[in-house]
This record gives sequence, structure tokens and C-alpha cells, in this order.
Amino acid sequence: MPPHPDRLLGIDPATRALARELYRAVADAPIISPHGHVSAEMLAGNRPFGDPAELFVTPDHYVTRLLHSSGVQLDQLGLGESGAAPGAGSPPREIWRTLCVNWHLFAGTPVRYWLTDSLARVFDLTLTPSADTADELYDRVSELLAHPDFRPTELLARFGVELLATTDDPADSLEHHRRLASIAGLPTRVIPTLRADAYMDPGAPDWRQRLEVLSNVSGEDCGTYRGLLEAIRVRRRGFAEHGATATDCGVADAWATSLSDPQAQALHRQGLDGSISPEGARAYRRNMLFQFGLMAADDGLVMQLHAGVIRNHHTPTFARFGADTGHDLPAATAYTEPLRELLNHVGTSPTFRIVLFTVDETAFSRDIAPLAGFYPSVYAGAPWWFLDAPAAVRRYREAVTETAGFYKTSGFIDDTRALCSIPSRHDMSRRLDARYLAELVVDHQLSEAEAQTVARALVSSIPRAAFRLPGS
Amino acid sequence: MPPHPDRLLGIDPATRALARELYRAVADAPIISPHGHVSAEMLAGNRPFGDPAELFVTPDHYVTRLLHSSGVQLDQLGLGESGAAPGAGSPPREIWRTLCVNWHLFAGTPVRYWLTDSLARVFDLTLTPSADTADELYDRVSELLAHPDFRPTELLARFGVELLATTDDPADSLEHHRRLASIAGLPTRVIPTLRADAYMDPGAPDWRQRLEVLSNVSGEDCGTYRGLLEAIRVRRRGFAEHGATATDCGVADAWATSLSDPQAQALHRQGLDGSISPEGARAYRRNMLFQFGLMAADDGLVMQLHAGVIRNHHTPTFARFGADTGHDLPAATAYTEPLRELLNHVGTSPTFRIVLFTVDETAFSRDIAPLAGFYPSVYAGAPWWFLDAPAAVRRYREAVTETAGFYKTSGFIDDTRALCSIPSRHDMSRRLDARYLAELVVDHQLSEAEAQTVARALVSSIPRAAFRLPGS
Amino acid sequence: MPPHPDRLLGIDPATRALARELYRAVADAPIISPHGHVSAEMLAGNRPFGDPAELFVTPDHYVTRLLHSSGVQLDQLGLGESGAAPGAGSPPREIWRTLCVNWHLFAGTPVRYWLTDSLARVFDLTLTPSADTADELYDRVSELLAHPDFRPTELLARFGVELLATTDDPADSLEHHRRLASIAGLPTRVIPTLRADAYMDPGAPDWRQRLEVLSNVSGEDCGTYRGLLEAIRVRRRGFAEHGATATDCGVADAWATSLSDPQAQALHRQGLDGSISPEGARAYRRNMLFQFGLMAADDGLVMQLHAGVIRNHHTPTFARFGADTGHDLPAATAYTEPLRELLNHVGTSPTFRIVLFTVDETAFSRDIAPLAGFYPSVYAGAPWWFLDAPAAVRRYREAVTETAGFYKTSGFIDDTRALCSIPSRHDMSRRLDARYLAELVVDHQLSEAEAQTVARALVSSIPRAAFRLPGS
Repeated sequence: MPPHPDRLLGIDPATRALARELYRAVADAPIISPHGHVSAEMLAGNRPFGDPAELFVTPDHYVTRLLHSSGVQLDQLGLGESGAAPGAGSPPREIWRTLCVNWHLFAGTPVRYWLTDSLARVFDLTLTPSADTADELYDRVSELLAHPDFRPTELLARFGVELLATTDDPADSLEHHRRLASIAGLPTRVIPTLRADAYMDPGAPDWRQRLEVLSNVSGEDCGTYRGLLEAIRVRRRGFAEHGATATDCGVADAWATSLSDPQAQALHRQGLDGSISPEGARAYRRNMLFQFGLMAADDGLVMQLHAGVIRNHHTPTFARFGADTGHDLPAATAYTEPLRELLNHVGTSPTFRIVLFTVDETAFSRDIAPLAGFYPSVYAGAPWWFLDAPAAVRRYREAVTETAGFYKTSGFIDDTRALCSIPSRHDMSRRLDARYLAELVVDHQLSEAEAQTVARALVSSIPRAAFRLPGS
Repeated sequence: MPPHPDRLLGIDPATRALARELYRAVADAPIISPHGHVSAEMLAGNRPFGDPAELFVTPDHYVTRLLHSSGVQLDQLGLGESGAAPGAGSPPREIWRTLCVNWHLFAGTPVRYWLTDSLARVFDLTLTPSADTADELYDRVSELLAHPDFRPTELLARFGVELLATTDDPADSLEHHRRLASIAGLPTRVIPTLRADAYMDPGAPDWRQRLEVLSNVSGEDCGTYRGLLEAIRVRRRGFAEHGATATDCGVADAWATSLSDPQAQALHRQGLDGSISPEGARAYRRNMLFQFGLMAADDGLVMQLHAGVIRNHHTPTFARFGADTGHDLPAATAYTEPLRELLNHVGTSPTFRIVLFTVDETAFSRDIAPLAGFYPSVYAGAPWWFLDAPAAVRRYREAVTETAGFYKTSGFIDDTRALCSIPSRHDMSRRLDARYLAELVVDHQLSEAEAQTVARALVSSIPRAAFRLPGS
Repeated sequence: MPPHPDRLLGIDPATRALARELYRAVADAPIISPHGHVSAEMLAGNRPFGDPAELFVTPDHYVTRLLHSSGVQLDQLGLGESGAAPGAGSPPREIWRTLCVNWHLFAGTPVRYWLTDSLARVFDLTLTPSADTADELYDRVSELLAHPDFRPTELLARFGVELLATTDDPADSLEHHRRLASIAGLPTRVIPTLRADAYMDPGAPDWRQRLEVLSNVSGEDCGTYRGLLEAIRVRRRGFAEHGATATDCGVADAWATSLSDPQAQALHRQGLDGSISPEGARAYRRNMLFQFGLMAADDGLVMQLHAGVIRNHHTPTFARFGADTGHDLPAATAYTEPLRELLNHVGTSPTFRIVLFTVDETAFSRDIAPLAGFYPSVYAGAPWWFLDAPAAVRRYREAVTETAGFYKTSGFIDDTRALCSIPSRHDMSRRLDARYLAELVVDHQLSEAEAQTVARALVSSIPRAAFRLPGS
């Protein structure tokens, strides 16, 4: 069954009719994707995708975690021993079949929505996945994937992706970005985003080794705290030269509290010699977040903050299957006190900008909207991860708008590594915003003309301005 | 006025029409009640209920607390000195009148809904309670209660209750369950549930005495920590032999953190000699929760966890009227970090299963749904206590479904000691789920056929599977 | 465009039609305003307002913070160096223009709603603010403000404000209230409210000086802790003699925990000699909150508690522009444990009454409604500050009603210093309650007759009773 043209536009007929109009005006607008996890290497290589399982199942922890939660083993889904190639355990056709057989588990979830939408939109397939249809779907998708039109950059072009930001380690040479920039006629501009999480935690086992790599790439000696800061500054400049307008940062909590140089240097040394305590590592990390804020106020790269995730909750799964395998879980999250010191330093600086994301939705009306409603530097990030789903998105708009309006929000962020879901995700957001705006109009809180203006701004000027993108 | 056939089915006409259909298909399905507080002794005795006050007011803290909050004294409602018989203070007719006179206080509450629905459904009474109608209602209910059709097991049969789980102390001999099991032709299967809360807290004044009783019943010496664990294991086996498929556990917080045997034994001894500190008692309790989890992974009894209640908030009321008198109150509640150690041990064990309940609704989207969306052992429990009401139930479905779907939820739990409210509560849940599903269909997120499948599963296969009930 | 007569009444046609009826029955009911920040001095002086900027922009931190968050400097909005006269920085016409030019920023916010509604209701102006209309609007409002009908007390009379409570320091002589009370034929009764926050914090720089002033006014020596308590008792009596029925209290958290007299006296002395630690100041403040509770149980003044605000988050803005300049921000807030000691002392006293407000909406269903649903003394305060907006108000009713009903809520509180917004704010609340009640009726949870009764009670008997106002 093809996706219904009115999906997500609401249940009240008058609202739906108006939402449909608002949606139509933005349905085909170019896609701006200022934050996501598509790999620059994949785009630069532009090889065809291998098979439906590799495309839709194995690398997508939204998909694998719910199957796992219902008793499917992760190795049945192509996840292997940490470091093993995806798909090592089961043949791709079987992986795909496992998804189809368990299709009912996804009822009411956004994964169901995205997969259905992507199959129809990208592959023109409207069969409902099931044991009966698994093989036919597998064959049809496989056949299309072999066609040159279905290579990564061709797909991005077809999707109307005007700009795509990747997420990259500071030690990344950015060679793939250079290659992409050199391709004439590529309709999608691909820019990097610096994400330096791995350098914030001197308690991590690979910290020392990462510092060495970064020293080499940056030409700064990361053996000292000052050297590490300098190396990151160097790489920020390098990223900006390659088009980056933003950094990203994922931390367990949002505390950004400064240390003196000698304090930080002492902890740095303890990190290098392996003697650092968990408390020391935490203090070091919180100071790094503070320093990143100062750097952002200095160079104007927009700081994205994704705080409040408990990573790798189930140690045995982490040991066997590695990170990003579905057991990163939300923590109760606050921003107002944790960011106080940083915002007292740079919160009203015109150069500084920070976009706040949360997986604890209580923070939307309590922390994020009030901060964005006073500080010129603070923007309310789009609903993230567990909250990037129809009902949660509606709650987000209701929680944020009354305090911060529309113009201090970030615009939609797809945050995905699943390339084929990009248009489906942006389309979902456009539909939900159209519905929200239509409800305000029908309830006589907003004029229809202004709703149209806002709907258009939400997919163009708002994300451009929030992320300081070219053309804003 | 009789309850409207379309009550709770929503305000949008198209949604309501579809919800009506979905509801009708499950309205008369047998009731499965895997968790509640109806007394096995009452069922085994099967004596008629005394009077309307005993049936609807005095033992129901949902009712008494709201009257109390508006200035009615608890002794006016039949609550007596701790240990005194219910109804000691006021004649039942006066108690009933107090409820009727204050009927307006319950506008917009589920108590109003359940009482109205039960009066109509069970007693065919549709008069609105008020000062004017109090006596007529009292007389009519009293008259019916004297009829054999209104004895407890006859009512359960009439309600279509196929299975009913009680909640029982490990020291319970289960004689009433044996007697119930021996009654030929009883259409309701009644099974016990082991709830060992009282043995977890070595700081409680009656702990030592309880251990003695449990030692006698189990044949294990609870004078030691290992002995207590063994006694509980023995009783779990005994309960399972009597049909139990689950345990329950109510704790102030969900922390389940292990102690070494010597640590636990030292605290056990301090509990016995009265020297234990509050911190020690807490550590002991948290280790017991961990141990109960290991036992569950061992014997396969489903572990229900009801965490986050501050018990007996008002000491003077507790001293005079005892526990369960309306001042148990919600605490801010987390599950993700507190259960980490336990889930790292047994979270992916196929034997282990845990159902999480909360009275802090922020935990639904932040903790419970994400845990249930990864761990095969974790289920999202139905809305509980303060949250078992129409708007809260809708929030629950919206908060949980997008992350965990329908098939990792528990199905409805009535959690009640008010026998006559059982069909009304299950009926409310069926109506609300029909409404929620209808909204997904009208918004084109779910097909009508799948909504029908889910609606049926929610009252049959889903609770059966979650609680490992016979026939699942 | 004039505000639509059906605004805020909902999107479903049947619900809206019923909401319209419910609303109409209360639309013109007299306004009871038991809590707000209109100045008694301004009313007693009854001088005309100066200009549109002074009326609508400069003193309203709801307006200035959102403009500031989009890059407008506070001095462009008339805020000056701390202590400087409002409007010092920019000419009022420019300030007004800044608002009009940035009108789009307020789309979807209650500020937009109130301003639009007030311009139409009070000034009969329905032009949409913009760069083009700024001057015309400015001139028209200025012209009207010069007319005697637009002086403060004339406006209150026109708005139908029957009772207005101000908020006042205990050291206030209440001379303005005496003068207002002596004006024959004033249709608005103006009563004071004692707010003693400034005396709770011995760590505040002006504490000692304030004690001296209070000593003079009260005739009690505030140099000792007992003296301060006695001074406050004296002033509570003085306020009550001037018609006060309530006190107010704003604190960082709701902990009310007692100290012994010697402990409190020791901290008092440390406050006077400047040696008190932050922990000591906090313990002193929490004991003061406890003592205020005991006083309330003694004299029957209703205790309003506004807890959970982080004041003056951005120190540089505070230093330059003073308090109440838009960077007071919500903190995560609990009431159940923090108020336990106080409620154990006086929670069931018929004299004691406490109204709980929050800017952390998670507290509504978790803390406030359950407390109000047991303790006769506890009332659920109306949505406050960031939460006084259409969607937040609907969430409030949904979060509170199912546990505490309607009769343990406070009725609407406008909490405003913007006099012209008073009728708009009460009107908004009446519309939203009508909508909420209509939804219950259409969903067959409430009869239409009872919805009408509740709608009327919410604007009359409920606030009268909650605040022990004359005529209740």
C-alpha cells in the first residue's frame, strides 16, 4: 500500500486541509542537512550499496535494537564481533527476511514510517514487508541498487540535498571532503563537522594513542594540555577552510566548568600515565567542554551540544558488537546550571553560538526554551534520536514555541547514517511542522499567511541562519 | 444518566467512529488481570460484601484521599485507628452519603469514571450520586449485595475474568489459593504473586519478627542472609507450584546493586540486633533487589518492579490510620542507571524478565521505553496508580510506542483491590487503546487491519506473553 | 485583523461550539486577581501611563527577553544601568518600533497573544504591528493614554477587576493601600500581599540594611533571629488588617526544614557580621520557609510558594540592568520530600493553606497534584510564568485534574505587572478552561451541566475559596 498523501497531517479535517496546503508549499524545497552521520568516504568513493540488509538493517541501530529487544540476536542481523565486517554472521537475504518477518514489532514507531516511506519514495516499492514478500522486496531492491542512479551521490542529487554536513574526527585529513569539493557539477555541497569527543576523556583506553595521531595531523604536541587545545584550534581552522561551519560534541552531561591551566595539565599527565581517577577524568572533560565554548566564541564555529546519553549500557554487548549497537540510553538532563559558567563568559558574544539537543524531553520547556529565549547565542535543537518521531516532535514544538518562538530553533536535523532515510526524515518533519502550524491557525493563534512564512523559513532561512551556512 | 456508549473514544468524529469499531471487537474479550490486590481469602470465603461503603469507599484510597483533601476526616470515611475494623467510626450509610454529597470533587477524575461505570455495569444504577440520591443508591446497592449473584466469585465470573493474580506475602501458606484451585467449575483461574518487600528492609521494626515467620513457613533459617535468600527461593518454588508466574516488588528507588555475601551478612546481623543505619538498610535493600533479579533469571518468574513511591508521607495519619491511606506519593524516578548492574548480569538472559512501572511519567520516554526497546528482558508496564487515568494513559502510549512499539508493553494491569471496578478499569483501557490506535489510522500511520490486530493482541497475547501466563 | 471570537477554543468543530457556550457564560464575569505585581503606588497615584514603550515593552521581561534573544540589546529597549530610569537609553518611539519590526519573533508565543488582545480590547487597535504600522500604532496609543479613561484605576474598573492583590515588602508602610481603601466608589478592591523573600537570605548583600528598615517599621529588633520572626509576625498582622489574605514566597527550592533556635540565631549572627557560608545561608532560608509555614498555620494567611527559579543567570546583565531582566530561569523542582517536615507539622491543620506553583511542569502530575489530592491544606497553583501559555495550560489541566480534580486548584493567577494585559490574560484562561471542559464533555467524561458549573466556579468560588477572599 503506498504511503497516504495526507499521512501525519493530523486527524481534524479542517486542520488537515490547511496542513496539506502548508506542507505542499515546502514539500519539494531543497534539503539542508546541517548534522548527520553519512560518511564522506562513502560519498567520495560513490560505490553502489551492497544489498538491502547493508542499506536498511545492519548499520541502523534504530532498527536492530527493536529486533534485539524482541529476542533476535544481533549476529542474526549482521553485527559481528567488534571490528568484524558487517554482515559477517548471517547472509544478507536472511537478515532482510528477519526484518520483514518481524515487521509488526515496528507498528507505531518512526522506523516503520521511514522504512515504508523510503521503500516507496526511493525504490517505488509499496508491498508491505512480511515473510511472504521478503524475497520479492529483497530482489527488487538489490536489482535497483546495482543501477548507477542508486549510487550515493546520485541519490543525494535525486533527493534534492543541497547541503550535507558530515561528522568527522579532528584527526581526519579531510581528503574525502577535498575530493568531493573537486567534483564538478555535484549538486550537493558536502561539508565537514568537527567532533572532538574522543579527546575529552583522559580516562578512555585509547586516549593516549588518539593524542599521538592528532599530534601528527595537527603538528602540535598533544602531550600537554595546552598542546592539545592548540591542536584542536588548528584543526578547527582546517575544518573551517574546508567549509565547516560547526562542531559537534556528545557528552554524558552538559557541565562546562573551567579548570586552571595547572589543574588541567596535572589531569592531562595523569591521563597519559594511566593514573587518572573517574572524578579527575570528569573534571577534565567538563573543562574541555568549557574550552570548546571559548574556542567557538573565538572562531565562530557553531557549537552543537548533544548531552545526556549513557553510552554502551550493556557491557557484554559492547564487548562483542562494539559501540552504536542500540544500548545508548537517555539520562536525566539539565542545561541551565551546567552551562551557567560558560554562558556567563560568552553567552552574549555575537560570535558564540550553541545549539542544544536533548534525549530527556523534560529539558525542552524547563531548560532549553528558556535559555534560547534569553541568550542570543542559544538555539533550541530539533528533537533528537528517541524523540525524532511524530508524537515526540509535536510535544517538542508545544514545549518550545511558547517560550522561544520559531526563530530560535535550529530547523530539522536528520542525524542519520541511513542515506535513503534522509528525504523521508525531512519530509516527516515538514509534515509535522505543517500540522502544528495549521493547528495554530485553526485555533486562531496565527494567521494563515504567517503560517506559510514560518513553514518556509523552517526549511530554509532558519537552519541556514542557525548553522551560519552559506547563503544565510 | 447512563454512561455514554462512546465515552473516552475521542472528540474527532472520524476517529471516534473508527475507535468504536476497534473497541467493539475487544469490548467483551475475557479479562486477564495479571496484577492486582483482590484478596484470595475473600475469594475463597466468597461471602457477600457488607455494604456500599465497604465496597466502594473505605478501602479505596483513590476515593478517600480526595475526600480527605477537601476537608473530610478519614474517620468519617470508616477508617479507624490502625488495626481497627474498617467502618469503626461512622455508620456505612453516612459514609456513603459523604461520598455522594461530595460527588462534584471527583469531576474529571478516573474515580468518578470507575464509580459511575461500576454502578451502571454491575448494579444497573444510573442515578447521579448526590445528597438527594444517596439513600436510594445505598438501599439499592445493599439489596443487590445480599443476592448470591453478587458474591465475589460470581461477580468475577460475570465480569468475564479469566485469570486473576493476587499479591501475597512469601510467608502466606497459599491455603486460600489451594481452596480456590479445588473448586470445580470456577471460571476464573486465581494465581498468587510473591511480593517480598517486607523482607528487604532490615531497618523496619517488624523485620525480625517477619523473618521468624518466614523461617517457619519455608523451613530455612532466616537468621542469616544466605538463609533468607534460600527461604525466598523455597517460597518462589512453592508459589510457582501454585500457579504463580510472577513476583512483585515495591521499592523507594530502582537501584539494584550487589553486595558481597560478607557485607550483606554483616548488615543482616545489624538488622537483627537493631543497630543498622539508614544507609546500611538501603544498601541491604538494593542488594536484595539485585538478588531477586538473579533469582528471576534462575526460575523464570516474571519480576514486576514498582519503584519510586514515598510511602506514608504524613506520619500522624500513618500513626492513626495505618498504611495505604492516601498519602503514598510519587518520587522522581530513574531506571537506566539504577538497573545497569542487574541488566549487565541478566538483561539478555532468555529466562529473565522484568516489567517496569512508574508513577513519575517522565520515566516513560526517557528510561522505560528505551530500556524495553533494547533489552529482550525488559517490558514497559502499564500506567500505574496516579497515571491510570484517561489523559495519562494517552500520554503513556504516546511516550512509549514510538520507542518500544506495542509488543514490549505489558498490557493493562488493573492493580486494584476494588473488585467491582475491575471490568470498568479494563474497559477504560480498551477504549483508550482503541482511541489511540484509531488516531494512528486516521493520521495514516497504521492500517486499519493492523490496528485491529494490535487492539486484540493488547488484551490477549501481549499480557499473556509478558507475564508468561498459561496459554501464551 | 481583530482577534477572532473563537480563538483558543479548540480545533474540533463540535468541541469548539460547546467551548464557545461555556466561555460565553464566564467571559464577562468580574476579574478576581489574587496574585500579581501591579504597584499600589501607581494605582494610588493614578497618573496616566507615559507612552506605549513604558506600557508594553520596557518593564515586561516576557517581551524584552525574546527580543534580546534575537540580538536586540537591552538598552535599545529602555533598560538602563541598574537603578537608572526606564527608557534612559532609547527614545520610546524607537523602542516601540523595535518591537513592531521584530513582531515575527513572537509568532506562537503568549506575548503575541496578549499584546494583540490588549491592543484590540483596550485601545480598539487591530493593525498588525510592523515597520509600516509602528508609528501609527504609537501615535494612537499615546493619544489614548492621555485620556482620563486610560488612567490605571479607570482601566481596572473598565476591565471589571473586582479584586486585585499586590505584592509588597513587609517593610512597606501600606500607605498606598490605605489611600486606595479610602477612595469612595473605587470599584476594584486592592489588597496587599506580604512577600518576605528578602529577609530569608542572610547571605544577601543588603540583608543587614533590610533588617534595620524592618526593625523600624515593625518596632521589633531584627538584630536577633527571634526578633526577626516577631517583626514578620507583626507585619503579617498589619497586612491582614489592611485586607491581606495571603503571603507570597519565592525560593530557589521548596525545602522547608527546621533549625533549633540556637542554630538559627548563630546563623543570623553570621549573616550580620558577613561570615555566613552559602550552606549556612541555605539552611537559614529553609528554616525561614518552615517558620513562615508555622506562622501561616497560626494566622491563617494563605501561603503562596513560588519555588524553583534560578535568579539572574547572566551576571553581566544583572550587573548592568538589574533584576527581572529576562534571565531568571527554571530549575528542576520537587515538592514532596522538601515539604514533608512542614506538612507533617501543619498539613492537616484547618488554618494552614499553601498554594504550590512551579516552572518545572514535571512537578504537576508527580508532586503538586498528588499533594493537593491528599492534604486539605495544599492547593495546585495555576500555571506560572513560562507555563502561562495555551499549550502549557492545557498540559497543566491534563496533568492535575485526574489526580486532584478542579476544586483543589487555585483558579487563574495573572502574576503580571502589565496592567493592560490583565483582562487578556484572564480571558485566555477562561477560553482554555472552556476548551478543556468542552473536550471532557464531547468525550463523555463530564455532563454539559457540570461543565458549566465548573467553568463558573473556576472564575469565582474556586479562587475565592483558595485565597480566603471576602465573599468566599
